[in-house]
This record gives sequence, C-alpha cells and structure tokens, in this order.
Amino acid sequence: MNREQALVLATAAGEAVRGTTSPNPPVGCVVLDADGELVGTGATAPPGGPHAEVVALARAGERARGGTAVTTLEPCNHTGRTGPCSVALVTAGIAHVHYAAADPTPQAAGGAAHLRAAGVTTSTTGTDPAPLRAWLHRQRTGRPHVTWKLAASLDGRTAAVDGTSRWITGPQARAQVHAERARVDAIVVGTGTALADDPALTARHPDGTLAGHQPLRVVVGHRPLPAGAQLLDDTAVTLLLDTHDPHAVLAALTDHPDVLLEGGATLAGAFAAAGLLDRVVAYVAPVLLGAGPAALGDAGVGTIARALRFEVESVELVGADVRLVLGPAERG
Amino acid sequence: MNREQALVLATAAGEAVRGTTSPNPPVGCVVLDADGELVGTGATAPPGGPHAEVVALARAGERARGGTAVTTLEPCNHTGRTGPCSVALVTAGIAHVHYAAADPTPQAAGGAAHLRAAGVTTSTTGTDPAPLRAWLHRQRTGRPHVTWKLAASLDGRTAAVDGTSRWITGPQARAQVHAERARVDAIVVGTGTALADDPALTARHPDGTLAGHQPLRVVVGHRPLPAGAQLLDDTAVTLLLDTHDPHAVLAALTDHPDVLLEGGATLAGAFAAAGLLDRVVAYVAPVLLGAGPAALGDAGVGTIARALRFEVESVELVGADVRLVLGPAERG
Ligand SMILES: NC(=O)c1ccc[n+]([C@@H]2O[C@H](COP(=O)([O-])OP(=O)(O)OC[C@H]3O[C@@H](n4cnc5c(N)ncnc54)[C@H](OP(=O)(O)O)[C@@H]3O)[C@@H](O)[C@H]2O)c1
Ligand SMILES: NC(=O)c1ccc[n+]([C@@H]2O[C@H](COP(=O)([O-])OP(=O)(O)OC[C@H]3O[C@@H](n4cnc5c(N)ncnc54)[C@H](OP(=O)(O)O)[C@@H]3O)[C@@H](O)[C@H]2O)c1
Repeated sequence: MNREQALVLATAAGEAVRGTTSPNPPVGCVVLDADGELVGTGATAPPGGPHAEVVALARAGERARGGTAVTTLEPCNHTGRTGPCSVALVTAGIAHVHYAAADPTPQAAGGAAHLRAAGVTTSTTGTDPAPLRAWLHRQRTGRPHVTWKLAASLDGRTAAVDGTSRWITGPQARAQVHAERARVDAIVVGTGTALADDPALTARHPDGTLAGHQPLRVVVGHRPLPAGAQLLDDTAVTLLLDTHDPHAVLAALTDHPDVLLEGGATLAGAFAAAGLLDRVVAYVAPVLLGAGPAALGDAGVGTIARALRFEVESVELVGADVRLVLGPAERG
Repeated sequence: MNREQALVLATAAGEAVRGTTSPNPPVGCVVLDADGELVGTGATAPPGGPHAEVVALARAGERARGGTAVTTLEPCNHTGRTGPCSVALVTAGIAHVHYAAADPTPQAAGGAAHLRAAGVTTSTTGTDPAPLRAWLHRQRTGRPHVTWKLAASLDGRTAAVDGTSRWITGPQARAQVHAERARVDAIVVGTGTALADDPALTARHPDGTLAGHQPLRVVVGHRPLPAGAQLLDDTAVTLLLDTHDPHAVLAALTDHPDVLLEGGATLAGAFAAAGLLDRVVAYVAPVLLGAGPAALGDAGVGTIARALRFEVESVELVGADVRLVLGPAERG
C-alpha cells in the first residue's frame, strides 16, 4: 500500500470517530511496515483516551519498526492527558511519518520538527482532510465551524402555504441528516423551530433507535420551551441560549467545534448576515411549491453585489433528491 | 460500429438540427455497410427538404446495399413534400433497419411494417431520443412540450430585494441558455418580464452575434409593449398573445412543439398550476440572498400533498453553477 492509499484509509478512520473526540481532533492513523504492508490502524479515542497514532502503533507492535506512519494531522508534540505522539513514534522505531494537515495549535505543534530531530523523515500533503475541517477551523479562527443544513423545494420553500411539509425530501435524505447529526458536536435551532415542531433533534438510526453519540442540542431565542418539550427530555443535553447574537452562540460553543445549524429561516438568516455560515448542505427536492415559507430569512443582502457567494463543493443524488454542498468561495 | 454506437451518432445528428425542422421531427440517421462500416450520416433538412434517411442514403450511395440503417425514429411511410423513407430504404437495398422511437403519427406510421413486407428486417429500442422529446410529446398529447428555464440562488430568488440580478449565474450558464434558445421553436415570457427587462430573447453566440436559427418570441399578457421594445425589432418574429390562459398559449403554438418558457415567476406559476410544465431546467447559483423576488409565483399548491413533483433527470456543474433538470415523475 502506498502513502496516498494509506491516507485515504486514515481519513476514513478519522471520519468514523468524528463527533466523539472533542475537544480533541478526530485523527486517523495507518502504520505500514518496512515493506509497505498495513500493520495497524487507529483513530482518536474519546477525551482522556489515546491518540490515533498510539492506537495504531499498539496494533502494529514490533512490525512498526522501520515502517511508515500515515496520519491525517501532524503528530502532536505535547504532553496532555496522554504523552506526545512524536515521542511514541520515535520509540516505536518508525522511520518515516507522512501527514496531511500541519497542527496549528501552539502547544501541540512542532511534532514534525521533533521527529526530524530524532532522525525520522517526514512528508506532508498540506491538505485539510474532511473529518478535521471543523477542528482546524476552530483552531485557526477561534470559533466553531458552522454547517447550515436545509431541506427545500427547488423553488426554495420549506413548506406549503398551509405549513405542511411532511415530506418534501425523501427517506434517504432524512437518514443522511440523522447520520450527520451523530457526527457533529452540536445542533443549533431557533425557538421558532423548537416551538413549531417540538423536535427531538436526536441522531437516530433508520429503525428509530438512538445513535451511540448524541450531539449537544442548542436552542437560540428569548422564548422559553414549554414543559414536556422533547428538547427537555434526557436523551441528550440541551443548552438554551437567551440571545439573538450568533457570535454569542458560537462563543458558548468553543468546545463544540463542529456545529450543525438546522434552522429555521430566521436564525439561518442571522448567521448568514453575521458572515458565520461556513458551509451549506442543501437537500433540494424535485418539487415545486410556488408559495410557502422561504428556506432563508433576511440575511442583510440589499443588492446583488452583496450576495453571499459560495463555491459548489459537491453535488449528488440522494434518493430522489439532490444534495448540494457549498463551501467558502475563493476570494478573487 | 455496432447498432448502439450508430444510434448515439444518429441522435447527435438529430440534435444538431433541432430547432430548424418544425413541423417535421429532428431525426438523425446513420447508414452502415454490410460490414458494419459507417458510410453515411444524415439529419432532417428544413421543411420541404429531404428526411434524415434520404440524406444518409445519398451520402452512402451504392455502399448502402445490404447494409443497415440506424435511425432515431421509425422511417416514415407517407408521401408528403418528400417520398416515403420506407420506400427509399428498400430501393437503396438496405437489409436491416434499427430505430429508436415508433412513429406515433397516423399518416406517417407503418414504415416498419412496409419495410418488413418488402423483406427488410427491423429492430427497435422503443426509447425516445432526447432530440425528439418535444416532437413526440406534441404527437402524443396534441400540445407543445414546455421546458421551464430558471436561474436562481440556492434559496430560490431571482434577484436581490432592490431588483438587481446581474449576474446571479455565471457566463457558462448564460452561454448554455443561448445555445438552447437556438435549438427550440419558441421562447415564451410574460409581459412582466418583457416590460421590466426589455429583453431581446434572441439566441446569441458568446461574441454577441446572432445564432443562425432564431426561435419565435412569444409575449403573454394584456399590456402592450412600448414602441422601441427590443422584442419588436426584426431580428426574429414576435407573437403577442393577449391572454392569461396557458392552454390558449399552447394552442397558438401547435406548430412550435419545442417551447422554452423563460419566465417570469407569474407566468411560470400559471403554467405550473395548469399542469403544463413538462420539464424544468434550473441553473442554481451557489449564492444566498435571503430576500428578493421568488423564482416561482403562485402555482395553486395549497398543501404539501398537492406539491408539483418531478424526477431528477440530470445534475451537473456548469461553470460555478449547478444545472438541474427535472422531468415527469413516475406516477406510483
Ligand atoms: N426545511 C428545513 O430545512 C427546516 C429547518 C428548520 C426549521 N424549519 C421550519 O421553520 C419554521 C420556523 O421558522 P423560524 O424562522 O420561525 O425559526 P427559527 O429561526 O428556528 O426561530 C426564529 C426565532 O428564533 C429567535 N431568534 C434567535 N436568534 C434570532 C435573531 N438573530 N433574529 C431574530 N430572531 C432570533 C426568535 O425568537 P424569540 O422571540 O424566542 O427570541 C425568532 O422568532 C418551522 O415551521 C420549521 O418547521 C424548516
Ligand atoms: N431569473 C430568471 O430565471 C428570470 C426569468 C424571467 C424573468 N425574471 C424576472 O422576473 C421579473 C418579472 O416577473 P413577473 O412575474 O412580473 O413576470 P412575468 O410572469 O413574465 O409577467 C407577469 C405578467 O404577465 C401577464 N400574465 C400572463 N399570464 C398571466 C396569468 N396566467 N396570470 C397572471 N398574469 C399573467 C400579467 O400581465 P398583464 O397585466 O400585462 O396581463 C402579469 O403581470 C423581471 O424582473 C424579470 O427580470 C427572472
């Protein structure tokens, strides 16, 4: 197996633990022996547990000696609840470390330099693997990464004019949303959505049972929730934020770098106006409504030159619907 | 070359003349000699000129004898301004005819039966090649085929709240719309669009010069156009229809089976409400506006169970935008 293939595997290993590692990054690591054979895979354990490199090295054992470690993030160089991964790699006799993103944290960075000082060669792709997107964003900007998820008709409506909306998008799209919930740190909605829909905002499997990881549920707005609201049950923790300020919402979520904003239109508009939508995941149904509530409320865009412009990251069919992912536009 | 490959070529030949053949269908034909070698290609000439088979046979000459004709439509069996293609194929000594769609016209049908009676074997895929979509629809339903084209932000707006909209979608999407205009029989807009934008509704090349074929321009509504309106210039013919009834619009366009509805929201809503949108081509820009005119006006949908449901036919990136094509949903 070559390094590129190993990095694909390491990324998948990281993705599998996304949502369960915060405040640590969901890193994946693959160890190849001196002949390039796969001898160990690992991913970040929940907080307090070992890092991805340590897990992969433990699996590889003696076969790591003279081998290559391929990891999604530069190995850490700092002693927190666990020892530095750079030291573990040297001790295990790894000859070469290949990693994707450099570690931007002041206290953890320097892992690659430490490795080279100890005689381990290093190489990097300099890319940001998808499972680390939110964590890297949080490290670089100081605030959580916000993905706005919406489900709408092709003409941008989330319900018919009488308020009915079950179902605009199909079962595959809904299942994907639940799977994504199980991978994020927090789900955010406004009181409008909380009061209108009494949603549970839990991550559920298609059979209705709860997923292993439940994100923090966050409700933004002044109005209280009524006793008996599903958001007040004990399937997951709910944070009620009595504010209208999207910046204040994110300040409260510093330890929850991967935030899924699930609406509604008013709160999404406020985040858009504040320049706080980092990514948009839209499920567009092949449906026309011609009337009904719009997917996005006022975002402070008065004229076309101030339109919020993104770049298409991916487009795909999900069941009968289209999933469109928008990311930051290259500023020209 | 096998029959499947030849049918792909024949379809491309038909597509190349789409927009120039009405009321005749834009058929494509490929002649293979007895060894399966390509010896002639043809497409329907403008009205009064030869049909695709006759063009392809003329190119093939003596090499057609014992060969195969592959065509997008069952060869016609009727003597109009030109002789029947079935007779021409027999005369040329064609041994086998492979075609896609059966001819639904009472006076032209029977071509395959005539061929078989004359000892020519036939086979068919029973499919509708894309260039014939509108013509077949017109033959089967008695009314033109309507494609609604829209360009909107991801949240379904066609302009910012101050009315500015240059440009939501990019140059590649706009170029594609012009190329499509050159392939249809008629472009339809409401007086709202005609008066607000003073559009030319011509098909232009990217350098601004006029395309060879200009569709009929149709304006629907009671208000007259001011003298000097671009739609009244002589680059193309314009039909002013003083009505609000989409059925009346299509009745006036019986000889223009391929209709492109370019808006605006009000007229598109009226066509949608009348069940007269056969296909939707949406250029969705990776842009959020949060306010501004909606892409689709009232379509008579009061509740989600009455939503107008389609099926995604294709999704692709066009420049920075997403092109989504919706076709009729399979009624379950
Ligand atoms: N299809 C979808 O993807 C989707 C997703 C979510 C929701 N929905 C639908 O959307 C509807 C609710 O829409 P909505 O727009 O009312 O919901 P919302 O955005 O969830 O809630 C709006 C409320 O949040 C509070 N709020 C928080 N921050 C605010 C700010 N910066 N500016 C203004 N208000 C702020 C206000 O209530 P206070 O007075 O309490 O402060 C406001 O009325 C529901 O019917 C739901 O089903 C659809
Ligand atoms: N982004 C896009 O894809 C796109 C495409 C086209 C237009 N637009 C924009 O849309 C705006 C115009 O919108 P619009 O909705 O006013 O345009 P429209 O649909 O082109 O025109 C509406 C007008 O057409 C007449 N009409 C014809 N049939 C009707 C019916 N069944 N019901 C009601 N009225 C009927 C009425 O005028 P009378 O009183 O004269 O009868 C009505 O006011 C323009 O600013 C244009 O730029 C955008």
